[in-house]
Amino acid sequence: MQNEFYDITILGCGPAGLSAAINATIRNKKVLIIGAEICSPPLHKAQKIDNYLGVPGVRGEELLARFMEHALDMGIEIISTKAEAINEAEGVYNILVKEEMVKSKAIIIATGIPYKPTLPREEDMLGRGLGYCATCDGPIYRGKDVLLIAHSSEAESEANYMAEICRKVYYLPLYQETMELDPRIEIINGKPGEIIGSDFVQGLKLKDGSEIRVEGLFVLGGETAPDRLIPGLEISNKHIKVNRQQETNLPGVFAAGDCTGPPYQVAKSVGEGQVAGLNASKYVGRK
Amino acid sequence: MQNEFYDITILGCGPAGLSAAINATIRNKKVLIIGAEICSPPLHKAQKIDNYLGVPGVRGEELLARFMEHALDMGIEIISTKAEAINEAEGVYNILVKEEMVKSKAIIIATGIPYKPTLPREEDMLGRGLGYCATCDGPIYRGKDVLLIAHSSEAESEANYMAEICRKVYYLPLYQETMELDPRIEIINGKPGEIIGSDFVQGLKLKDGSEIRVEGLFVLGGETAPDRLIPGLEISNKHIKVNRQQETNLPGVFAAGDCTGPPYQVAKSVGEGQVAGLNASKYVGRK
Repeated sequence: MQNEFYDITILGCGPAGLSAAINATIRNKKVLIIGAEICSPPLHKAQKIDNYLGVPGVRGEELLARFMEHALDMGIEIISTKAEAINEAEGVYNILVKEEMVKSKAIIIATGIPYKPTLPREEDMLGRGLGYCATCDGPIYRGKDVLLIAHSSEAESEANYMAEICRKVYYLPLYQETMELDPRIEIINGKPGEIIGSDFVQGLKLKDGSEIRVEGLFVLGGETAPDRLIPGLEISNKHIKVNRQQETNLPGVFAAGDCTGPPYQVAKSVGEGQVAGLNASKYVGRK
Repeated sequence: MQNEFYDITILGCGPAGLSAAINATIRNKKVLIIGAEICSPPLHKAQKIDNYLGVPGVRGEELLARFMEHALDMGIEIISTKAEAINEAEGVYNILVKEEMVKSKAIIIATGIPYKPTLPREEDMLGRGLGYCATCDGPIYRGKDVLLIAHSSEAESEANYMAEICRKVYYLPLYQETMELDPRIEIINGKPGEIIGSDFVQGLKLKDGSEIRVEGLFVLGGETAPDRLIPGLEISNKHIKVNRQQETNLPGVFAAGDCTGPPYQVAKSVGEGQVAGLNASKYVGRK
């Protein structure tokens, strides 16, 4: 992956992402899929799928395994992580993944059901004491108290870094795994409720009513809203706006599957993935 | 089928039509498919399909058989014929099929790759000596010479009827089967070239240059253009115009698959069929 230049990078390894990938690969495009550990949790949990034509009465997990096998048999490169940030420069997209930069001529977003923020008013408070990258904003909170809400253990290294520069670090994990945390960090067991403070963050109220007063609040490892991931991306009714060619408003950026709107169904996602994969291939061919 | 009232009638038994049918059936809708003998000739002929996710490296004919099996296992009613005419009255669609009338609350058009006229200038000459229904227009040509271009043996009974009332009937079959034709009919072996006559039909020129002078010309058993089949249907660039919900401009009329535009691919058709099937079911539920 390192320093590689891909034709098409696909975000998401569910039905839409995998369908886009096999279609672009057949068109001889160099494809990278950046996906989560479990591709498409809703399909993974489905007891029985009976409406994907030609494959009647199949468990979701089994269908997903068949999809994955189809893609892997074609030699498609899949990495289990997420894109941190995407920026465009001179017609090329730079994708920050695990502190490395991947270059790609086109992007297909196939990230599934729409993004939900972790906290109410999260978007309003962004930059007002709330952040998504402790490593980036850390220096602002030197000598102050901060609370980190963590969706996965990947946030632990960020917490440890904050423990070195902040007065007090609270850590609220939303996952169940062993932790390697600096002993100075105080672990909070509870569910996040709401942000305290109107102009600036003053703390976090938990679901049990207790309050933790801090000046900085971070949500780490959560899903990134697509329009924050790719600045300027047009959203309509919480979904990525696409036309019938699966083109978004940004040149070279396509979207397919649940993230483009209902119905949230396998065949619809596979079909849109195909159209996105073929049209992204055409786009790359024209460049 | 006779005098039955369906929730959804689907025109076409290719990937889009069958996908629409299974999805509407799962939604408890009463579904009829009106399809050709061979559902989706392009897929039927395909040597190898490798881009329908989850079913790698399959012959087109085999994939089509699996699709059909999925639909038949759900008990979906399929009849091998074509819709002659469709008219709407008081929110119900009346579909003329084999001289019977079928009623349906909603229609899904999934008729495949766009209609191509049999002859150049066919549309211009319609009603000017050119027709699609000999039985209907026959009386106009009593005692005159006519030529019938026939796409299938179903046209033979029309030809025999014309032989009784016309002076001379020429019959140009575009199919290879045994025929049961009135001995007064003259069979033409050749390929139709172009229509002779500008204001009115004066005859037909064959590809070999020979000419047959007639006052009436019929094209029988050919595909019917969707906007002639359903008057008022909006066409854009030779394809049925649909939005992302697979709705056409007419209420209760949906379209899916190749007839809505490229790419002409299986997954795209199956996906669109699903969306059309689910949205037609919603439409019927609201009525």
